[in-house]
Amino acid sequence: MQKAVESNSHTKRFGQIHTQPYSFLVTQLVSSPKHWQAEIEGVYIESGWLDISVQDQTYHLKAGNFMFIPEGVIHSYLKKADDGVVHVLKFLQEHVIKHTFANDTKTAISRMYKNYFIAESLPAMGEIVHQIQEADFGDYNECYLCSKLTELTSYFLRYPSLVVMEKSRGNEDTSNSLRSTFDFIHEHIRDGITLEALANHLGFSVCYCSRYIKKKTGMTFVEYVNASRISEAETLLLETNDNITEIAYATGFSSVQTFNRVFKQIRNINPTEYRKKRKGKK
Amino acid sequence: MQKAVESNSHTKRFGQIHTQPYSFLVTQLVSSPKHWQAEIEGVYIESGWLDISVQDQTYHLKAGNFMFIPEGVIHSYLKKADDGVVHVLKFLQEHVIKHTFANDTKTAISRMYKNYFIAESLPAMGEIVHQIQEADFGDYNECYLCSKLTELTSYFLRYPSLVVMEKSRGNEDTSNSLRSTFDFIHEHIRDGITLEALANHLGFSVCYCSRYIKKKTGMTFVEYVNASRISEAETLLLETNDNITEIAYATGFSSVQTFNRVFKQIRNINPTEYRKKRKGKK
Repeated sequence: MQKAVESNSHTKRFGQIHTQPYSFLVTQLVSSPKHWQAEIEGVYIESGWLDISVQDQTYHLKAGNFMFIPEGVIHSYLKKADDGVVHVLKFLQEHVIKHTFANDTKTAISRMYKNYFIAESLPAMGEIVHQIQEADFGDYNECYLCSKLTELTSYFLRYPSLVVMEKSRGNEDTSNSLRSTFDFIHEHIRDGITLEALANHLGFSVCYCSRYIKKKTGMTFVEYVNASRISEAETLLLETNDNITEIAYATGFSSVQTFNRVFKQIRNINPTEYRKKRKGKK
Repeated sequence: MQKAVESNSHTKRFGQIHTQPYSFLVTQLVSSPKHWQAEIEGVYIESGWLDISVQDQTYHLKAGNFMFIPEGVIHSYLKKADDGVVHVLKFLQEHVIKHTFANDTKTAISRMYKNYFIAESLPAMGEIVHQIQEADFGDYNECYLCSKLTELTSYFLRYPSLVVMEKSRGNEDTSNSLRSTFDFIHEHIRDGITLEALANHLGFSVCYCSRYIKKKTGMTFVEYVNASRISEAETLLLETNDNITEIAYATGFSSVQTFNRVFKQIRNINPTEYRKKRKGKK
């Protein structure tokens, strides 16, 4: 089922901090360019597999695996099993920590989500992800989602042996410059963002800024901006009924023609066909 | 199964505010004298029925019913179906409210638990109570219990039509004097508490104090203290392996002889036989 359960509308998803936790389901191959966000990202592989790059290292996640990536850590989705089903949870630490908790508990939670880690799961934990995905609590979704994320957190606290890989986030990737870069790009992705504006914002020369982006993302500035726009457009194509023109403008393209051309260039298919093919599968 | 899941030891249960939510299972007929506590009390009837008195009105709860009683509201358990199974949850409002919640959500939760109400339940809600009862999260039980209580709360918010009776708490029963009375009695129930000491504490004459207790609880001072002690002793008999002497002293009796006599007088059976009979049933 092609369903996205979110507390906020899709237009608020990209590059913004959410005040409420939310989740979405990835049933299609949606690769993403490198990015970070100000939320903790939890990935659960329901079936198939997913290759994910975190801080330039690739991890192969198998069915039943969870991976959690702290806020501010650069990562990207590389490749997913064609028929694999992946759930993504996004939340802030304060959605799962209560001030009433014992200090030891607060510290344990905070330490856990500061690192990135891969964990096996118990059946009950997969079930929680399903409940999150199917949540239908209207105005009270936030209350319900917080309860389920806290429940999931309890399992990781209670069964630390589930964790098969844990790594402390480095400092390099969370430098202020890189944060500013991603923030600026995602904030302005719907506008006619330019390398000059970014360089100016960062206080870099255009030349240095260009090399910096290339080094950090493996892409040129234009490639990175386009990849980000296409990644967002894909989600909109699959999860909304907005028409192609609306999606082109919503993701910052100056015309439908440009959108079609860039999309085809990156995905080897045009947006309309992409949507038809993917939605037809369901 | 005769299992009590608590975050704190039983000796802390009686007449004290808990900093962690906890729950216990009532499989025996444990009637209780009138009391209030500083926690919200949730009762779930798994099977059978329970008659409960809240602010001097009797309510008949059937299988599948929940009843929530706010902190500070006087209530007592009157009678339970012999083979009925009743779950009791105790928690504070702050265990289910998060500061990140939308203001409307916070207000809705706060309003809900300020009243007392009876509600039907969905199967998922009974399941949550079971999960609470069987919680086995060690040091992180608090985290897990808060998540499950918040989840349960989401259901009441989402499905207000489940509520079949809702009543605003009056002011009368939560007067400072009555609070002080119950607090003082429960704080000193293990000591040789006297009517004089209570009257002195409240600033009442002994004579007025005596009439006041009778009016508010339907019992004389001595009857009320003894009923409270026996109610606590019953729980200890069923849920611990402490011997009779230990239980007698733990509940404030000056000797095993007095404990046996009073217990027999109230329950028509002596403590040892009571334990044997009830535990033998399991």
